[in-house]
Amino acid sequence: MAGTRLTAEREGELYAAVLDLLREVGYDALTMDAVASRTRSSKATLYRQWGSKPELVARALRHSKPVSTADVDTGTLRGDFHALVERSDDCQLERDSALMRGLAQAVHQNPDLHQALRELLVAPELTGLDGLLRRAVDRGEIPAGTPALRYVPHMILGAFVARELIEDRSPDRAFLADYVDAVVLPALGVA
Amino acid sequence: MAGTRLTAEREGELYAAVLDLLREVGYDALTMDAVASRTRSSKATLYRQWGSKPELVARALRHSKPVSTADVDTGTLRGDFHALVERSDDCQLERDSALMRGLAQAVHQNPDLHQALRELLVAPELTGLDGLLRRAVDRGEIPAGTPALRYVPHMILGAFVARELIEDRSPDRAFLADYVDAVVLPALGVA
Repeated sequence: MAGTRLTAEREGELYAAVLDLLREVGYDALTMDAVASRTRSSKATLYRQWGSKPELVARALRHSKPVSTADVDTGTLRGDFHALVERSDDCQLERDSALMRGLAQAVHQNPDLHQALRELLVAPELTGLDGLLRRAVDRGEIPAGTPALRYVPHMILGAFVARELIEDRSPDRAFLADYVDAVVLPALGVA
Repeated sequence: MAGTRLTAEREGELYAAVLDLLREVGYDALTMDAVASRTRSSKATLYRQWGSKPELVARALRHSKPVSTADVDTGTLRGDFHALVERSDDCQLERDSALMRGLAQAVHQNPDLHQALRELLVAPELTGLDGLLRRAVDRGEIPAGTPALRYVPHMILGAFVARELIEDRSPDRAFLADYVDAVVLPALGVA
């Protein structure tokens, strides 16, 4: 079967298995052997298709979380943020949070993984968020040059991390919706 | 020497070695054997003095970072926050950030460690921050009931995490000072 492309369905199954393993054992303990065994594939196939573990993990992450900001455009900044919150679900938020935890140390120790993550996952999200904010500036909702504009990703990440570390709970939609109204919009000068 | 208390100096050396190990290898790989070997002490002494690895790690963290909010009182909220930023140093901030990374996954997998960390490190910090914010409310700088009041720790943690994950840099004083002015104060309605 050398040279055969995986079907999209099979590829999706593989990515899901990689993320399950990542949540269970963390990045360092995730081996290509474990992925091969869990998915009943050969290591040769994994390496041929993805080249390396960081690339496989980054692809799996990207597959699980398509850029969701692109088609949100409700006409107000508050509407856009709340539409983003509403389209997520609590179970997915909890799983995303587990992934972030498992990767925090790994991305620092693995420049390849960090690079792959930035290109595949972080950069598209930031671009989507950027578009959403730029429209709000264009509409006059946010004064151009508002200092908090460059820190919106920081505020949002903080909501996820502190919810875990301080409150010992997973972020859910009700919490995120409240955080948007209490922190993100006021920091941007939007009432 | 059974029953002999360690001197304060010796205790400080031990804690410093524990934190060095934590930054180097992470929590899971940090064994009592490694601590004993690095500090030339016996495992019996370590267990007698601290009881368990989570407790030893939590104590070491607490020792390295005394509550620094308690004696800050400049008369304005902006002054208080900037005094906190100025009294930290960039090297220390980078080391704190490395510790947070190394512990993110560990606290989730070890309820004992999470509990010890909350009691010894997080709770006192939150109390200190709370006092600082309460004084600002009492002075009339922040209207009582401002929704962002309950999310100040979230905003601050976000600054640390996103600086690493998105900007790929350690937080430093200049960045934190800018973040305070751009995000924390506006979210609290303080110009």
